[in-house]
Amino acid sequence: MDLLLTAANAALLVAHDLRRDSECILILLGPPDPTRTIRLLGNQLQFYGPDIRGNAGLIRKALRHGSRLERETSPGVFASRRGLSEVLEASTEPIVQLREGGKDIRSVELPHDVSFVLSDSVDLSEDEEAIVAGRRVAVCSVGPRSLHASDAIAIVHNELDRRYPG
Amino acid sequence: MDLLLTAANAALLVAHDLRRDSECILILLGPPDPTRTIRLLGNQLQFYGPDIRGNAGLIRKALRHGSRLERETSPGVFASRRGLSEVLEASTEPIVQLREGGKDIRSVELPHDVSFVLSDSVDLSEDEEAIVAGRRVAVCSVGPRSLHASDAIAIVHNELDRRYPG
Repeated sequence: MDLLLTAANAALLVAHDLRRDSECILILLGPPDPTRTIRLLGNQLQFYGPDIRGNAGLIRKALRHGSRLERETSPGVFASRRGLSEVLEASTEPIVQLREGGKDIRSVELPHDVSFVLSDSVDLSEDEEAIVAGRRVAVCSVGPRSLHASDAIAIVHNELDRRYPG
Repeated sequence: MDLLLTAANAALLVAHDLRRDSECILILLGPPDPTRTIRLLGNQLQFYGPDIRGNAGLIRKALRHGSRLERETSPGVFASRRGLSEVLEASTEPIVQLREGGKDIRSVELPHDVSFVLSDSVDLSEDEEAIVAGRRVAVCSVGPRSLHASDAIAIVHNELDRRYPG
């Protein structure tokens, strides 16, 4: 859970504020009761900050909503049972996959509005890879080393911040 | 503390391993009993991983050592009462300061062995700035936005990974 929350922070926070133009979608596949999807919307979050333990409370509250239908469980926090395929269908296009062995992110054209899919420390399964392959426009890599999701997200944001400052 | 531990993770970890050639030095100035300096050595750490709460235990143990003299409190974890000036004196040169308004890190020549100084969400004091100014060779910035320390560290590592792969 720490890895996920750290990744969410990298996706949603700058030094003293939220990234109001970012959305972070966590797809939780682990026990006890998968699949759960939690969307965190930077422009609507109110009780979200750098403190991992505080954010864990928001996630726990979201997980208490076990219905298929999405519901806002705290300001800017939306919970449902959507899976990868449904999430990708509803995601802003183009969709770029991040993983080892992709094209260097620095050499790829990226529009201002773009979605990135990446896994935590466990690689995507064959089925998940197939689902992503059906929606993505490119596979990109952030550099020569295999990194934690949070570090990869920080690097991607930096790339977009440089291309679209302000 | 979460911010510091997240920053230490960005400094010391890649996907499934430690960065064996990295060292992370935390200078803790807050109550109840400052100044405390904790050095984490990537090539010697044994009980360090992505879990923030696990690492917090190593830090708490290190903080129980309140003497000026540095001592190894766990494998790869060294505690002392050294302050900024002593830490910089013992740091690998060149020393590069990271903060807003510096030269773009992508355009600066960086050797393989280099130290970076950066602050958490509170900027350096005037006195601290003066100490750093006396030792640094450059002030660099990672991009156009003001970021959390962990994200800045991830971006700097990526820059070095690209220049010195393998």
